[in-house]
Amino acid sequence: MTMFSSSNTFRAADLGCATGPNILLAVQNMIDAVKHSHELPEFQVFFNDQTSNDFNLLFTSLPPERRYFAAGVPGSFRSQLFPRASLHFVHSSYAIQILSTLPKEAVDKSSPAWNKGRIHYSNSAPEAVDAYEAQFAVDMKSFLEPRAEEIVHDGLMAFIVPGHPTGTPHSEAFFNKTLEILGSCLVDMANMGKISYEKVDLFNLPAYLASPHEMEAAVKQNGSFSVEIMEYLHQEKQQPEALASTKRAGFEGILKEHFGFGEETLGRLYHLVCKKFGQQSSTFLESSGDAMNLFVFLKRI
Amino acid sequence: MTMFSSSNTFRAADLGCATGPNILLAVQNMIDAVKHSHELPEFQVFFNDQTSNDFNLLFTSLPPERRYFAAGVPGSFRSQLFPRASLHFVHSSYAIQILSTLPKEAVDKSSPAWNKGRIHYSNSAPEAVDAYEAQFAVDMKSFLEPRAEEIVHDGLMAFIVPGHPTGTPHSEAFFNKTLEILGSCLVDMANMGKISYEKVDLFNLPAYLASPHEMEAAVKQNGSFSVEIMEYLHQEKQQPEALASTKRAGFEGILKEHFGFGEETLGRLYHLVCKKFGQQSSTFLESSGDAMNLFVFLKRI
Repeated sequence: MTMFSSSNTFRAADLGCATGPNILLAVQNMIDAVKHSHELPEFQVFFNDQTSNDFNLLFTSLPPERRYFAAGVPGSFRSQLFPRASLHFVHSSYAIQILSTLPKEAVDKSSPAWNKGRIHYSNSAPEAVDAYEAQFAVDMKSFLEPRAEEIVHDGLMAFIVPGHPTGTPHSEAFFNKTLEILGSCLVDMANMGKISYEKVDLFNLPAYLASPHEMEAAVKQNGSFSVEIMEYLHQEKQQPEALASTKRAGFEGILKEHFGFGEETLGRLYHLVCKKFGQQSSTFLESSGDAMNLFVFLKRI
Repeated sequence: MTMFSSSNTFRAADLGCATGPNILLAVQNMIDAVKHSHELPEFQVFFNDQTSNDFNLLFTSLPPERRYFAAGVPGSFRSQLFPRASLHFVHSSYAIQILSTLPKEAVDKSSPAWNKGRIHYSNSAPEAVDAYEAQFAVDMKSFLEPRAEEIVHDGLMAFIVPGHPTGTPHSEAFFNKTLEILGSCLVDMANMGKISYEKVDLFNLPAYLASPHEMEAAVKQNGSFSVEIMEYLHQEKQQPEALASTKRAGFEGILKEHFGFGEETLGRLYHLVCKKFGQQSSTFLESSGDAMNLFVFLKRI
């Protein structure tokens, strides 16, 4: 790596960083990796997330004894966030699977892609799956294009997303199965009269699990990166309580916004989710397909 | 200015930015100034303040149609905040006059610099003035040294602070006179039994108004910058109500912290301040020395 020979600064960005400690670990890993192969450069690390992210919390969570210069960058990573050729390394963990927008056909009663009674696409009509897939392709384009501007020649980008194996149905993916259960619990709440069926029909989670094949197609279509590594990372499955907590943390905001849930109703929903995870643990948590994360490592060519 | 010929990015930082709209104006001015003399570069603007600053508010206040890449940088500007030789322009408005710490002699009963019955140094014993002056010199050193690292050769730094003319007593400076009145109102509150005299004795505002001579000495002592411009900017004096509001906004935090004031007591104090400003408007607001801001423009040599 001679990509930053003209300066002694190594600039890295974490896209979709949120506020958690995982990010800090990722940053330390980045720094350690570069330190091992170079005379000590100075590190500048940019933490990016939507403007609505709690950057105050992020900044107070940064270790005071950090050995890098930190900066927060607000805004969508589907736009250019940094000057041209200014980053040496970009990292993103569990963010790129979130779609920029819901495919509008999925909530359009008159469309064959209408996703009635479901909150995700994985067990839906082929038209709904296609609509999600098309949106993901659009979003990968708007993710890769700004990165091609920002990353220096020979610069690197690593990201991790929940994925599904090429050629297998979306419904087999563990992540998607957990969303199916979340959806069925929302239908249960509609059956109990706690929420309206219409609200459930209009609720869809804007997340898509890509296959390696789709990722490769997106990178090829962009044309500015070579694929250095694309592989599955096996993830230990969580126990029902932990899994329900993860789902709650991940979707609390969007559930509150769409359904107007208060803490009590949200608690009731997650009690249902947790119970179903537990009931199905033999057939679902233990025997079904691996919890798969797709690790993608690209080089700017 | 050929200082960024090797890259097409112009990097600027605003130190002690807080969250207000003034900063955005300053940024626009920076950008306009550079645009007029160059083929359009890309701009990256770093907004710096203490980690406790409300960066969330700052980020949501940034205009969505901005033509620069924005980043927030938490931390004290008395340490290195950016990689070496990475900034082309640094700006700071009304921040450098804040001392990093109170001179400890000022609140030490056994010291001749003990600032009994006052909250600022300008009418105090020479020893108290000296203690403030010495702290300012230390702080300028710890402000200029990191900047010398961060700013590129030929890079520029502009800052504005409330100042006082070389060779005149500190007590003549308008800014200091307003603090004297704030102090006298706190003594009034002690006389009324609302707060203890001891609390007043132990309260000192950590701000120092430098003269051009002192600024020049600090720059010379540092040795990495040339003084391009050092001049007074006349500032229109505010009317009593506006002036009292400014003081309230500036010192609310520190007053709450030291005296444990609630909103009601704080309101009472500012009512007193406002009244005194009004009473003294003929002798004080109109006839006394100019409200002076010192504008300092340095070049990295």
